[in-house]
Amino acid sequence: MDNKIFKEKINQAIEILKEKNIDMWITFVRESSIIHDPAMDMVVGTNSTWQAAFIINKDGDTTAIVGDMEEENFVSAGLYKNVIGYLKSIKEPFIQYLQDKDPKSIAINYSKNSVLADGLSYGLYQILIEHFDGTGYAERLISSEDIISALRGRKSAAELKIMKEAVEETLKIFDEATLYIKPGVSEIEVADLVKKIAEEKGFELAWEDTHCPAVFAGPNPAGPHSGPTEKVIQKGTLVNMDFGIKYKGYCSDLQRTWYVLNDGEDKAPEPAQKGFDIIHDAIQKVADSIKPGVKGVDMDSIARNYITANGYPEYPHGLGHQVGRVVHDGGAGLFPDWDKYGNLPFIELEESQVFTIEPRLPVEGFGVSTLEEEVYITKDGCEFISEPQSELILIKT
Amino acid sequence: MDNKIFKEKINQAIEILKEKNIDMWITFVRESSIIHDPAMDMVVGTNSTWQAAFIINKDGDTTAIVGDMEEENFVSAGLYKNVIGYLKSIKEPFIQYLQDKDPKSIAINYSKNSVLADGLSYGLYQILIEHFDGTGYAERLISSEDIISALRGRKSAAELKIMKEAVEETLKIFDEATLYIKPGVSEIEVADLVKKIAEEKGFELAWEDTHCPAVFAGPNPAGPHSGPTEKVIQKGTLVNMDFGIKYKGYCSDLQRTWYVLNDGEDKAPEPAQKGFDIIHDAIQKVADSIKPGVKGVDMDSIARNYITANGYPEYPHGLGHQVGRVVHDGGAGLFPDWDKYGNLPFIELEESQVFTIEPRLPVEGFGVSTLEEEVYITKDGCEFISEPQSELILIKT
Repeated sequence: MDNKIFKEKINQAIEILKEKNIDMWITFVRESSIIHDPAMDMVVGTNSTWQAAFIINKDGDTTAIVGDMEEENFVSAGLYKNVIGYLKSIKEPFIQYLQDKDPKSIAINYSKNSVLADGLSYGLYQILIEHFDGTGYAERLISSEDIISALRGRKSAAELKIMKEAVEETLKIFDEATLYIKPGVSEIEVADLVKKIAEEKGFELAWEDTHCPAVFAGPNPAGPHSGPTEKVIQKGTLVNMDFGIKYKGYCSDLQRTWYVLNDGEDKAPEPAQKGFDIIHDAIQKVADSIKPGVKGVDMDSIARNYITANGYPEYPHGLGHQVGRVVHDGGAGLFPDWDKYGNLPFIELEESQVFTIEPRLPVEGFGVSTLEEEVYITKDGCEFISEPQSELILIKT
Repeated sequence: MDNKIFKEKINQAIEILKEKNIDMWITFVRESSIIHDPAMDMVVGTNSTWQAAFIINKDGDTTAIVGDMEEENFVSAGLYKNVIGYLKSIKEPFIQYLQDKDPKSIAINYSKNSVLADGLSYGLYQILIEHFDGTGYAERLISSEDIISALRGRKSAAELKIMKEAVEETLKIFDEATLYIKPGVSEIEVADLVKKIAEEKGFELAWEDTHCPAVFAGPNPAGPHSGPTEKVIQKGTLVNMDFGIKYKGYCSDLQRTWYVLNDGEDKAPEPAQKGFDIIHDAIQKVADSIKPGVKGVDMDSIARNYITANGYPEYPHGLGHQVGRVVHDGGAGLFPDWDKYGNLPFIELEESQVFTIEPRLPVEGFGVSTLEEEVYITKDGCEFISEPQSELILIKT
């Protein structure tokens, strides 16, 4: 991410603090190359070895308090108006700064709901509380989850442009995979080809290379998030791939489904075609309903109910998640009301967020039908970032 | 890190639990590719999307409780004897498991002292406490810092072998840099050459590429941890480099000092030579004293006092740190009694730990003299892993 986007994000954070009436937001870190608060990737960009506080205020002031051996790094990055260095302990300049500002509310990075707002480790939290001992500021601490959710979710024009390019580049790689998918080729061979193309183009993978891409050939495949196996593609079966890249600091995440024609076939048999159509239509139904103000849990229900009403089992995961600097980004998600998703299914969606929509269903005897598209929430609806897959891709053999 | 070393480390963890009489150690994570508990790099190795508990017991049992979509990944990794998958919430199988074992002490990953034992984020800690609500287990929680410190610090023969190779490969790159260092070449040019060599050899850098390597030319250089600048190497000055690689999952971290001869010189002038000798001798004095049972703060004092007794200012950082999977590794360090180092200066050193020794001093008008060696703590002393730099390297022009 270049400095321009960091500056844009810091200014956006100031606006969000005003909107939510929070006086101060502190990203407090140490050895951040080892335990990395993801907030740093939005508003800091440079790791810190020693305890450091990156402070953004509702009044527009921004201050970094860092170990003095790294002061020059943060001065030259030029993102914070004030950079204060310390030698032995951060406590004195930190508390002095707080007392000068006397914030009524101080957001720090912990959250039960959102991992992206949960970058403060528990031991470091205890240290922060010790620094604040006797000052009364510990009682003013709140979670930064609303700030970070808005900051990560609301994509600027510059961010959206990059994310569209990331999707376009990813779909080109899917097109190359289409030429390679044929009977006798294994899941691992398809995955290796895709990884090789991505590497040649200089793209990082959006998630771990053990299952990026994930490739699923034919009936009874391994579950989602499983890595590719030695299983070989066969005629008369469905093949799917889940794949994304990291492009200029932003991720893509897409799935496509192919059908490998059997001898004598010129189209997919009815069960495979129907499995594809139901997934395609489920996505369109969600796209027709999604807009600012709706809740993810209701979007998940639209797809989940449509699939089960058509006689298929429900998918064993959420319908979709936000995408951004990381592949599972943001706060609100298109999730069912399951304990592991916390409050994320119930947060209202906002304009400028990017979501995946990725339902799945098994087609008995053929494999799995899955599609994953990305949509961008507009003022009153959504736009597809990815050109949706409208037809089952047929592999002729 | 290959599976063999993970297995070795899990077995070592069981022995450490016996030694310290701790019944159970839980590494509790979620979305671990986003917020990454460094304990995972010792005893897990595979990221988890959903809440997951990796449990090692004093009785030798090992169990992973993971989201069911990723169950196969952990079964195939083969590190944990039992792998339990869940769909909607980890709570039920997790509490069931605890009740079966009924541990009297449960270590989790939080630590004020050691960032490497502080992988549990504060929001996730709150979730853990909620899961434990009504069970009484929250009262049995302790910090895993002693376990992790021992586990990371005590290098096995296999780990030590890799770390020696990492140092050898790093010193070869330093030798190549020696051929390139000459008047008129900038700090950035030296750094770029070193990065290019490392990349061609397929090595990752041990820390961020903004200051790996850090190169310092002549008087009044930027501070340690600063990146290289456009400053050009001049005759009659000292040049230093701080550089390390990541090799087979383990880091190296070394510094060397060169003197660029002035016209007519065939050796360094007395002030530059003395600056080098004092640093060299300071390291040797520490190496003569370091052994199991001593405290880092006393090792730091040996070097710090020797340098100041010779009329130089004290170095603005600790004398040395442990090295391992990450470049600043382990718990105990050779640190002064400064607030930011917590209790780490006061932990007794143990056999099989690897430390850097890296004092520095400024030489008025010439630049900075720094050396950084790595030593391995033996039963009654230490061995240098790096062949110590015994002479100032002279650059003829």
